[in-house]
Amino acid sequence: MDIVDLHNKVSTDEVDLQIIEILNGDGRASFAKIANTIGVSPGMIRQRYNRLVEEGVVQVVAITNSMRMGLTTMAQIGVKVDVSRMQEIAGQIAEFEEVIYLVLLTGSYDLFVEVVCRDKEHLLDFLTHKLHSVEGVKEAETFIYLQIAKEVYTLAGKMGMK
Amino acid sequence: MDIVDLHNKVSTDEVDLQIIEILNGDGRASFAKIANTIGVSPGMIRQRYNRLVEEGVVQVVAITNSMRMGLTTMAQIGVKVDVSRMQEIAGQIAEFEEVIYLVLLTGSYDLFVEVVCRDKEHLLDFLTHKLHSVEGVKEAETFIYLQIAKEVYTLAGKMGMK
Amino acid sequence: MDIVDLHNKVSTDEVDLQIIEILNGDGRASFAKIANTIGVSPGMIRQRYNRLVEEGVVQVVAITNSMRMGLTTMAQIGVKVDVSRMQEIAGQIAEFEEVIYLVLLTGSYDLFVEVVCRDKEHLLDFLTHKLHSVEGVKEAETFIYLQIAKEVYTLAGKMGMK
Amino acid sequence: MDIVDLHNKVSTDEVDLQIIEILNGDGRASFAKIANTIGVSPGMIRQRYNRLVEEGVVQVVAITNSMRMGLTTMAQIGVKVDVSRMQEIAGQIAEFEEVIYLVLLTGSYDLFVEVVCRDKEHLLDFLTHKLHSVEGVKEAETFIYLQIAKEVYTLAGKMGMK
Amino acid sequence: MDIVDLHNKVSTDEVDLQIIEILNGDGRASFAKIANTIGVSPGMIRQRYNRLVEEGVVQVVAITNSMRMGLTTMAQIGVKVDVSRMQEIAGQIAEFEEVIYLVLLTGSYDLFVEVVCRDKEHLLDFLTHKLHSVEGVKEAETFIYLQIAKEVYTLAGKMGMK
Amino acid sequence: MDIVDLHNKVSTDEVDLQIIEILNGDGRASFAKIANTIGVSPGMIRQRYNRLVEEGVVQVVAITNSMRMGLTTMAQIGVKVDVSRMQEIAGQIAEFEEVIYLVLLTGSYDLFVEVVCRDKEHLLDFLTHKLHSVEGVKEAETFIYLQIAKEVYTLAGKMGMK
Amino acid sequence: MDIVDLHNKVSTDEVDLQIIEILNGDGRASFAKIANTIGVSPGMIRQRYNRLVEEGVVQVVAITNSMRMGLTTMAQIGVKVDVSRMQEIAGQIAEFEEVIYLVLLTGSYDLFVEVVCRDKEHLLDFLTHKLHSVEGVKEAETFIYLQIAKEVYTLAGKMGMK
Amino acid sequence: MDIVDLHNKVSTDEVDLQIIEILNGDGRASFAKIANTIGVSPGMIRQRYNRLVEEGVVQVVAITNSMRMGLTTMAQIGVKVDVSRMQEIAGQIAEFEEVIYLVLLTGSYDLFVEVVCRDKEHLLDFLTHKLHSVEGVKEAETFIYLQIAKEVYTLAGKMGMK
Repeated sequence: MDIVDLHNKVSTDEVDLQIIEILNGDGRASFAKIANTIGVSPGMIRQRYNRLVEEGVVQVVAITNSMRMGLTTMAQIGVKVDVSRMQEIAGQIAEFEEVIYLVLLTGSYDLFVEVVCRDKEHLLDFLTHKLHSVEGVKEAETFIYLQIAKEVYTLAGKMGMK
Repeated sequence: MDIVDLHNKVSTDEVDLQIIEILNGDGRASFAKIANTIGVSPGMIRQRYNRLVEEGVVQVVAITNSMRMGLTTMAQIGVKVDVSRMQEIAGQIAEFEEVIYLVLLTGSYDLFVEVVCRDKEHLLDFLTHKLHSVEGVKEAETFIYLQIAKEVYTLAGKMGMK
Repeated sequence: MDIVDLHNKVSTDEVDLQIIEILNGDGRASFAKIANTIGVSPGMIRQRYNRLVEEGVVQVVAITNSMRMGLTTMAQIGVKVDVSRMQEIAGQIAEFEEVIYLVLLTGSYDLFVEVVCRDKEHLLDFLTHKLHSVEGVKEAETFIYLQIAKEVYTLAGKMGMK
Repeated sequence: MDIVDLHNKVSTDEVDLQIIEILNGDGRASFAKIANTIGVSPGMIRQRYNRLVEEGVVQVVAITNSMRMGLTTMAQIGVKVDVSRMQEIAGQIAEFEEVIYLVLLTGSYDLFVEVVCRDKEHLLDFLTHKLHSVEGVKEAETFIYLQIAKEVYTLAGKMGMK
Repeated sequence: MDIVDLHNKVSTDEVDLQIIEILNGDGRASFAKIANTIGVSPGMIRQRYNRLVEEGVVQVVAITNSMRMGLTTMAQIGVKVDVSRMQEIAGQIAEFEEVIYLVLLTGSYDLFVEVVCRDKEHLLDFLTHKLHSVEGVKEAETFIYLQIAKEVYTLAGKMGMK
Repeated sequence: MDIVDLHNKVSTDEVDLQIIEILNGDGRASFAKIANTIGVSPGMIRQRYNRLVEEGVVQVVAITNSMRMGLTTMAQIGVKVDVSRMQEIAGQIAEFEEVIYLVLLTGSYDLFVEVVCRDKEHLLDFLTHKLHSVEGVKEAETFIYLQIAKEVYTLAGKMGMK
Repeated sequence: MDIVDLHNKVSTDEVDLQIIEILNGDGRASFAKIANTIGVSPGMIRQRYNRLVEEGVVQVVAITNSMRMGLTTMAQIGVKVDVSRMQEIAGQIAEFEEVIYLVLLTGSYDLFVEVVCRDKEHLLDFLTHKLHSVEGVKEAETFIYLQIAKEVYTLAGKMGMK
Repeated sequence: MDIVDLHNKVSTDEVDLQIIEILNGDGRASFAKIANTIGVSPGMIRQRYNRLVEEGVVQVVAITNSMRMGLTTMAQIGVKVDVSRMQEIAGQIAEFEEVIYLVLLTGSYDLFVEVVCRDKEHLLDFLTHKLHSVEGVKEAETFIYLQIAKEVYTLAGKMGMK
């Protein structure tokens, strides 16, 4: 899998941010409707949208609510690994279907691994037969989610401009 | 803001999962195209899509890559709070524009707060003037992201079925 | 509630231990049957049994499997309290119906509190509105059970003799 | 040994809970007496009791007070293990006669092991020659009991119904 | 009580160290016997001994074995205090008869307090009604002794010379 | 070296405790003087003293103040070891001349090792070439003494009686 | 005092780095000598030097070796503070003459404070009467230096260019 | 590389300290100017300066501000190592160009390593391919700098005298 690159700022203007804001409310809004709302031509919207997608600034995707699909056990797992092989290990963990988010970080853990499981048995199975079977995983602490209080996919317009 | 409810499984079938999978690849794919791919009528796709959205199983949204927008400092913050007021405190922290994900959990932290900032000065400002100014926040440990290695928005089809 | 006293050894002999062992297998075994198995008179069994109960060595009780009753979330909670009021605080926590076991200990926690909850929402409610609302509770770390691998109510005969 | 299964709720009604409550007070109460108290026929009590036992909801057993038997040192031991072999390791630890409760969990420990020992020498011997001699045990922290403040075997009637 | 001063080296020679070594074996050895062993006059021994005592290099005292006196629970307690009042707090804790050694230190604790108690009840009482009732004591972790493996009162002759 | 046994209470009476108290003030007080102070015969004092020494209740020894001898760096070292070999490892560490006190304990460390060194270079040398060269020593945290606030060798009379 | 700004890169070229390298070897080297070594005019060196100083890229200063001046106790202190007032607190701590380096950071501490003291008494005095007397300092852990193994004031030429 | 020696106090007087103070303000101040300020002959200043440099009390060097040179990511790294080889390991880590300060210490870490990197990618590369590739490095926790609040190179005059 591809490692997401954290670099290279792409410059965006007011119109770009308005397009993103509308698409964030409804990812399937037509270009005509967006154009109408903002007050520019649909062709310009399409052009802008295509550029934002190509440059990796924005993507429109379906997001599923795993709880609604009967996957009741979510957790963040703080993992300590053999750091000399950290990226290779992260790559192996990223392959597991239960993993939806994986970050390399500084501090008292090396990785945070966010997982979605059907129930506690599934989580136990993931921990023993998947995560801890990856060579180089040294220690892991599991934080089980009690409730998700906020989850947003785009930043507020003002932050995106500064 | 609304607290996301973690309960109540909604049953989904094979066709639902196919629709979700296609929309995950391209959230703006037309119902006609989806219908064609799966081999059912566009009307059925529209009906299914609307039901999945209404029941909170799926949403189609624009997702922005904050790094591409010049917000170079992301972090996960483990927070200990006055647990007797945990949900109220979580609600206040969720109001900050820098916060994109906020979870209540078990373990050595009470909350995980994921933030996006322009740079380290902005993060320092967020920690002092926002997060730690919320009454009831007792301690916080910041884990700065070095790299995001995986980020997915829907689960693999097989997991969603079981 | 009564604080269980940890002191004062009561001496037991081979016959006592045999009675206990049989009752541990079936707490409702008749004295006649026990007498028959051990090879002494039923009167002696009754007398022994009554003495063991009176001296607090043994009790015959119904034990319920909370998982089977739909209480799916069990946890051990390590708690740090204002130690100058430790016994008073322990007494207050012991009043909560979710608490099935509560121990005062040495080490990095002051108390271990074992709880049984219906689900994660119930646990969250217990933590915020019950445990952390007790004055003097300073910090708590929740360890959610994935599986119970052993649970016994009497010790092996040999240990009881030494 | 058998691993206790945490799943599959069994439905219980008001009469079941009354039977359990009476047996919790006195595990050897006769069916006639129970029937009399509740106001139904002894045959129905026997039938209900047998079903509750068969379905694993309830068991009537002898519980011994280890302190009264001269076993003065009880402890909870938080253990970190090679998680890829966690269930096998838990199985080996469960074999030791000193172990009365063993749980697999999430958080900063992988297992909690509750032990009963005669004295501190016995505990030292258990730690060195038993627990830490199990391959895959990496670290352990012992919390010695100062006092047991609550210990119940069935849940309050109201919780069992919800 | 007096705070022991850690400074000001007193110079000692070979004869001083020989005297100390003999007194360490038997604190009540007569000066005549010591003089005889070393090969100098008893008067010189007396003079040297008096100087060593006056300068605080050596003291001859009775040491009791608390275990032999029925005080079965010894512990080291790591304490975190309000450091701005550390010496005052240390002074108050030093007053308790259970405390036999008290040190101010650097690292993850501010004080180590060594205590001798009759049993676990006495220790619990000490922790709640004495140690944690001292204002400024913030946190404490108790390490119960399983065994004392070495305890010496004078250093080996070679170290004392360098 | 001998491992000090923590067991077997020896009974002591009021006269024993008075003898100990006097010897704690001055370990070289003559039996005649002690007899005079207490009001019994010198022969009885001698007999009592000999019994107390033989039974390991008391010993009269020379205690040196290491600071006064130019050994300016004292530290308590919390050590984690391979617990399956804990007593063997403790035995090896006890051999080092810098070690004046060594205890096996429960909690977040397995051993506490008290050392006396000439200076920080000597301590560094002890840590690298002695302590950490013992096979089975896994981790150690050093707490450097800033000040010794209390150090007593016998317990107050009242505690010794109860 | 001035808070050092971490931002705004100043561009430097090969000649700048050569000047810096020479001045790092001998901060008092004459411009004539530097000009001679590099092969450009002394006037250009002076101009370059003045620009580097004005823009805050370089400064030439006297560095003292505190150990040589009889200040034998150096330590790094990890401090947790009331983060809502972190910069104000850092400012107050920076005023103390013992503090030579003070950094605000992310992770399990909020500040690292490097101090130089005459001896352990001085350090104890600093901790109690200075550091912990600053309002908002919540906790601190002191790491005493055993040895400084590397200390450089300019980076290797290659790193400065990239 | 040379290990800086922490020992051997060199005595300094009032004039020495005045010279140091002036050079700390401007490391390139001429001896004539210093002599004029203090009121002694330039020859004496030169003599004193040379002695202070030879004895390792003072050095005049160019100090670069790495932030100004585009090295935006500074961090302190707490490292746990195989202490039996601590000095050898410290020596290897000291070789890396990113390391500007390296200290051996007591407490919960064995080493503190201060590094300067261009950005988070460079830091990640340093951690994986340099620091953790050194044999004997067991664990490391990275503290990223948000701001440097104080940085001085000589101590205040009064401290240098005592």
